[in-house]
Amino acid sequence: MKSIRVFAPATVGNLAVGYDILGVALESPGDEVVIKEGYRPGLFITEISGDSGKLTRDILKNTAGYAARQLLKKLGLEDMPLEMEIHKKMKMGTGLGSSAASAVAGVYGVNAFLDFPFTKKEILRFAVEGEQIADGAFHADNVAPSLLGGIVLIRSNEEMDIIELPVPENLCLAMVYPHIEILTSESRAILKDTVALNDFIGQTGNIAAFTSALYTSDYAMLGRSLQDLVIEPQRAQLIPDFYKLKDIAESAGALGFSISGAGPSMFALCDNMETAEKITMSNKRYLDSVGIASDCFTSGINTKGAYLIN
Amino acid sequence: MKSIRVFAPATVGNLAVGYDILGVALESPGDEVVIKEGYRPGLFITEISGDSGKLTRDILKNTAGYAARQLLKKLGLEDMPLEMEIHKKMKMGTGLGSSAASAVAGVYGVNAFLDFPFTKKEILRFAVEGEQIADGAFHADNVAPSLLGGIVLIRSNEEMDIIELPVPENLCLAMVYPHIEILTSESRAILKDTVALNDFIGQTGNIAAFTSALYTSDYAMLGRSLQDLVIEPQRAQLIPDFYKLKDIAESAGALGFSISGAGPSMFALCDNMETAEKITMSNKRYLDSVGIASDCFTSGINTKGAYLIN
Repeated sequence: MKSIRVFAPATVGNLAVGYDILGVALESPGDEVVIKEGYRPGLFITEISGDSGKLTRDILKNTAGYAARQLLKKLGLEDMPLEMEIHKKMKMGTGLGSSAASAVAGVYGVNAFLDFPFTKKEILRFAVEGEQIADGAFHADNVAPSLLGGIVLIRSNEEMDIIELPVPENLCLAMVYPHIEILTSESRAILKDTVALNDFIGQTGNIAAFTSALYTSDYAMLGRSLQDLVIEPQRAQLIPDFYKLKDIAESAGALGFSISGAGPSMFALCDNMETAEKITMSNKRYLDSVGIASDCFTSGINTKGAYLIN
Repeated sequence: MKSIRVFAPATVGNLAVGYDILGVALESPGDEVVIKEGYRPGLFITEISGDSGKLTRDILKNTAGYAARQLLKKLGLEDMPLEMEIHKKMKMGTGLGSSAASAVAGVYGVNAFLDFPFTKKEILRFAVEGEQIADGAFHADNVAPSLLGGIVLIRSNEEMDIIELPVPENLCLAMVYPHIEILTSESRAILKDTVALNDFIGQTGNIAAFTSALYTSDYAMLGRSLQDLVIEPQRAQLIPDFYKLKDIAESAGALGFSISGAGPSMFALCDNMETAEKITMSNKRYLDSVGIASDCFTSGINTKGAYLIN
């Protein structure tokens, strides 16, 4: 019986300067999906672990199932007997692209099972459609880096026009996840639907400089440009002591610190792992001191994206 | 008697996707400034040509004079006997950074006369302060490319944090200047002080992709990303038949077409000179047909910025 297992990584969406258009893949955590031959026509989800019973097995409503089905539909293989297991290895609702990782693992798993009829870029759209089931919005800032790895820029979500940006050698991340709940819908709802012209000018300067600095491995410029003038000031209120945590991270040498996706996770971009470890420890210590449970961990940048485990 | 002559080029500010933060230098036209030993203490403007009598010789009110004086002040040389001639080789108020070119030529001329006590980057701020006399605003999107050449990104005007972006080999410009008058002040005044969130997202995607494409010489991506979703739609009304001219340029193969600075000049960015020539000819023909006088010309990109002529 043929069976394959794939991994798709967690991601940091927005990356401070690229709201809805920039994301980076972590080495871990991530989700795993198993695809194997089935006994009846069609794709079925037979097992889901690690979701505390929150996810549906209905492939039309499950991000991994839906993404995979979009690929099968494209090939006219909806009736191929297939079984899918989804193993959530990361919590949901943390701002680390959990639903995107599942969608990517689902479609990448089926593509791998079929011996790769499509390239990764060709299945990107299916994964985005899968994530849309959970998220409502059509944007690839988590899905694209989870699938392709590295730092991905989405020039246009509508046109699915993406660029894989270079990743300077020493970049790594300190992640801080306080155990509070923020709904993505709420996190989007509080955003004003306009941006002040001056902030627009500043933020276009920052994202262009950040992009340039990735090409030139200019860590100092990465540090000066990784400032979110638009979204972070509006969302910081959703995270207790956000500015205190940011201050700790920046004092410890972070290139920048901001909210991961819709939060509540936060990230510090660093130019060495020692600094990243210092930041996770001091932020963890601070959150402990104010009675907020948290997971704090470091990660390198995953530059290969989703991959076959066996 | 020591005497030197310098040239500073015209520039296209904004470059569609970088309002106030992006500019490119043309090979021509540009302004010339002569600096020579004087007979009395202090810097004096002794001659201005090509300005139709519009510019003042008061060095505290003239962009070239003021910029030069800022440098001299820094060195404690305000009383050094110096004479400045300004030869305007480009019209004013066309949207080609005329006052920026004069400011650059003024300060670069004095720096050259003194055998370069400062680097180009060190005199940038003096030139920006000079242009500010004419323009009122403190921004370097014309001054920086005129001084340094090539395509320059200003991450932050306040911090004068700039990046010289790479210039793909074949890039060139078709310039279209209809003889109509637009005041920079009016051109700024019509802009809304906010940007729709969706346009903000689209424009950050475009400028990041444009920046990336300069590093990778990806002409197709330059074409897809060179779209101004924010400023052009508001300013197009100031230029008769703007969208007709844009349509002609894009049909002829321009990578993109938009307003140069505050207008009324427009530019087409092209990946070869033949296309640029086709665009200047067909836009000229069209403007002739509707009775609007114009200057249409092509230019390569000046990659060295201001330079000594003799």
